[in-house]
Amino acid sequence: MATEAVGEVIPNLDYASVMQPIAGNAGGKNLLSMRQLDHGDIHGYISEAYAIERVIQDPRQRGVSLLPFVVLKAVMRQPSTRTAGSMVTAINKLGGTADLISGMTSSSEAKGESLADSWIAFATQADIIGTRTAEDNGPMYAARVIAEAASQDQLWQNVPVINLGDGRNEHPTQALGDLFTVHKEFDKLEDLKIVIVGDHERYRAHHSLMIGAATVGMSVVAVESKTAPVPHEYVDSLGDQLTITPDLDAAMSDADILYIGRNPDEYTGEEKAEKRRSKKLAKDYESWVVDLDRIQQMSPDAIVLHPRPRRNELHPSVDSDPRMRDVQQMENMIPMRMAIIAKHLGKSISGSLN
Amino acid sequence: MATEAVGEVIPNLDYASVMQPIAGNAGGKNLLSMRQLDHGDIHGYISEAYAIERVIQDPRQRGVSLLPFVVLKAVMRQPSTRTAGSMVTAINKLGGTADLISGMTSSSEAKGESLADSWIAFATQADIIGTRTAEDNGPMYAARVIAEAASQDQLWQNVPVINLGDGRNEHPTQALGDLFTVHKEFDKLEDLKIVIVGDHERYRAHHSLMIGAATVGMSVVAVESKTAPVPHEYVDSLGDQLTITPDLDAAMSDADILYIGRNPDEYTGEEKAEKRRSKKLAKDYESWVVDLDRIQQMSPDAIVLHPRPRRNELHPSVDSDPRMRDVQQMENMIPMRMAIIAKHLGKSISGSLN
Amino acid sequence: MATEAVGEVIPNLDYASVMQPIAGNAGGKNLLSMRQLDHGDIHGYISEAYAIERVIQDPRQRGVSLLPFVVLKAVMRQPSTRTAGSMVTAINKLGGTADLISGMTSSSEAKGESLADSWIAFATQADIIGTRTAEDNGPMYAARVIAEAASQDQLWQNVPVINLGDGRNEHPTQALGDLFTVHKEFDKLEDLKIVIVGDHERYRAHHSLMIGAATVGMSVVAVESKTAPVPHEYVDSLGDQLTITPDLDAAMSDADILYIGRNPDEYTGEEKAEKRRSKKLAKDYESWVVDLDRIQQMSPDAIVLHPRPRRNELHPSVDSDPRMRDVQQMENMIPMRMAIIAKHLGKSISGSLN
Repeated sequence: MATEAVGEVIPNLDYASVMQPIAGNAGGKNLLSMRQLDHGDIHGYISEAYAIERVIQDPRQRGVSLLPFVVLKAVMRQPSTRTAGSMVTAINKLGGTADLISGMTSSSEAKGESLADSWIAFATQADIIGTRTAEDNGPMYAARVIAEAASQDQLWQNVPVINLGDGRNEHPTQALGDLFTVHKEFDKLEDLKIVIVGDHERYRAHHSLMIGAATVGMSVVAVESKTAPVPHEYVDSLGDQLTITPDLDAAMSDADILYIGRNPDEYTGEEKAEKRRSKKLAKDYESWVVDLDRIQQMSPDAIVLHPRPRRNELHPSVDSDPRMRDVQQMENMIPMRMAIIAKHLGKSISGSLN
Repeated sequence: MATEAVGEVIPNLDYASVMQPIAGNAGGKNLLSMRQLDHGDIHGYISEAYAIERVIQDPRQRGVSLLPFVVLKAVMRQPSTRTAGSMVTAINKLGGTADLISGMTSSSEAKGESLADSWIAFATQADIIGTRTAEDNGPMYAARVIAEAASQDQLWQNVPVINLGDGRNEHPTQALGDLFTVHKEFDKLEDLKIVIVGDHERYRAHHSLMIGAATVGMSVVAVESKTAPVPHEYVDSLGDQLTITPDLDAAMSDADILYIGRNPDEYTGEEKAEKRRSKKLAKDYESWVVDLDRIQQMSPDAIVLHPRPRRNELHPSVDSDPRMRDVQQMENMIPMRMAIIAKHLGKSISGSLN
Repeated sequence: MATEAVGEVIPNLDYASVMQPIAGNAGGKNLLSMRQLDHGDIHGYISEAYAIERVIQDPRQRGVSLLPFVVLKAVMRQPSTRTAGSMVTAINKLGGTADLISGMTSSSEAKGESLADSWIAFATQADIIGTRTAEDNGPMYAARVIAEAASQDQLWQNVPVINLGDGRNEHPTQALGDLFTVHKEFDKLEDLKIVIVGDHERYRAHHSLMIGAATVGMSVVAVESKTAPVPHEYVDSLGDQLTITPDLDAAMSDADILYIGRNPDEYTGEEKAEKRRSKKLAKDYESWVVDLDRIQQMSPDAIVLHPRPRRNELHPSVDSDPRMRDVQQMENMIPMRMAIIAKHLGKSISGSLN
């Protein structure tokens, strides 16, 4: 396997074997895609996050020793402050520790090591791995390489892999945190209308959220421009639960949740077509700017989410509006990522196996 | 607030609201300036540092579980090995953990995030923040942004901010460690004569030390050159307790403490005036070099301090002299920074709220 | 001492005083060279590693609180993912914490600090130090500087230094992990035949392994090319226990262990002679490639080791062969490095001082 992948070129393999359905038991499994989760699974993560939040927001506790001596290796191949930081805080508040590896390549790869060999090396030093990759399926590849080595008894244990964002594909831990934020507001997920606006083609947080929202029975409205349409696979799999419209104002007027994501143009490449696309998309974003005026048309009970960092698309004038939940959304990532780490190592704060 | 600050440009706001007097109770407050501390406060930090030192220097203990699950975010915008490292050791020996962020900008800022938004994001992941900034008032700005978000219930808790050095302004944790070192030697702080020599204009450790020394009733002598004089605000506020002289040898001959700081010329900018100033200051430092010969004129009971790193201004020949306390001074930063972290989270090793 | 070393130029001092024989008691001592260890010492580390392995591979334990509040400072002057990561995991699974410093120079050195001063500063913040240096004897110099400051009561405690690889000299923790891997296979170390092939002149892992293997009574065969011969000091000190041959196939056919190391040509300098050497050595490595075919001539009970990362010298075709132990070899570094850290701080998992 070592020769199949060099650097960040991810081979086009079948990753189904490492993307098992959670089906009520996350212990020992990878979290790679929201497609692994059914309705009950999503509520399971949310229940756990509520229980954990009560503990960490109690100043006499601030954490819980669920995972002593557990080492999380967080391998961030794309820059990240927020996700990396929340994973570090999450494992520390579970009594474990983090080893954060940032940068495009490790020193081992600089020494000429294959990507597969690097993943095996990381797995020998960790109890659980979280990773962000520039390429689609990077975490899936890691999970497959590790599972194979474990099945051949080269590794004494399989090491679960958590996808912290892979290329233009998915960002499931973000989506679970987002759904937790929604649940805290409405005390349910079902039958809510969520409007998602932004770069649907490439922004991975949108993809995972669309799958998750549809799984729990939300009505999903994607406000789309021609430059960055919802990919066919999402249109196909969401079916009736997805509506597509070009009209943001019409869509948001009766929404329960407005979700706007950043224009991820720092990932724009150097090719001419890429730059042309980027220019067009910037124009789209100008028409989507969410400011204090614009959100007044929403119900006072509606909420507005944004998976920070924000730029111009979310104007600071909104900060005082009671509909804003974007800061809480960041905070909610801590208990949710704690819930994810715990559950995928077979633990839960209630003391029983999940 | 998000648009008020981009990168390291700190807005000129009123920071009094986040610089409350400690007045015997540091719990939940920021530590931004030595001006927040009265005579009793300084002795309070020192008492706590003594108690902590006994525990961490007991090889059967090495630390104390005062702050389990507490996450310190150390955001070092200027390079730092020593201060960052001692904060990391300090929180670990209190049973908590550190997340160290080094570098001029975070990846979030590279993605176009405002400085205010970055601070909010850090606050969602931390129980306490320590930060060093290139600009004056950087930590004060962080504290203000965070306090506002907490007061608006965007953040579930306020997160205290510890100033680990802001531009040319202050470095209060260094000054508290320095005063602890003095107290260990003389068993008091009052009525001692401290001579401080170096770049009084820009060296922040001098500023915090001057305030602190005056607060506890020391007599402060600043050996000053025309290039780097004591700023007016310190002359004004220290009043009678400050004497200014150009003559190092006369000043040090009857001093209890000689304190020399590094020429911080790595911060010299590229402008012509800056470079001219730097050249002149280097000449001043040549006349201030402290070597074995020079310190012989001091009492055998006097001590010499230097907040490392040192360069030519403190000659290695002094290392064997019994007056030197510069290594101990570094060591003393660990129990003092532990005391600071604990007290600002409302804890003390004696078990009661401070 | 501060002026004796600037940057990475290590002074040519007598380091015997910091390289004491372990002689059954590692507590408080440095681990700088395999020459400090006798036969019994090596078995002592291995016994401890076995005991620790049982604990960390028990999913209900995963670690042991032997070293609470202990801070390991890992100062990696050469790039390292694997060694740094395994040290971090090791100290965390002992209940302590790591402060990892990576890069050629620290910010203190950038501020003009001497190397000696930097080591003293690190020592004020740590209970134990591990370091990798580009120059031979870098860790020995650190140990000497620190021991002197401790003996003069500048430091309140001596801080043991663990050599994590120094230039072209030694890599003792790697060798101990390698010997642990051998022992797990053969339940003994004595009277085994180990064949070592690669760059004997410069590859430090070979050096430490040769010393260790000879110490426990193995028969060592070095497969050598003219470009990278075994240095005279090893030829002299190993005596009868070392055989040198140019013929890899003849040597490996009846070996118990085949050990091949990477061509460390990322360390090749820019001088012409260096580049010529590198070219020749690359040719040697072509003739040494270990692939699935080649290892078939070995006994089915033999094992093949490689201290990853690997490049072309170990072909991925071997991965399915039952003789391969290179992944386990990485895994074994965790319990072995835990054993080393614990023993050098006077602790052992059996609860008694070692």
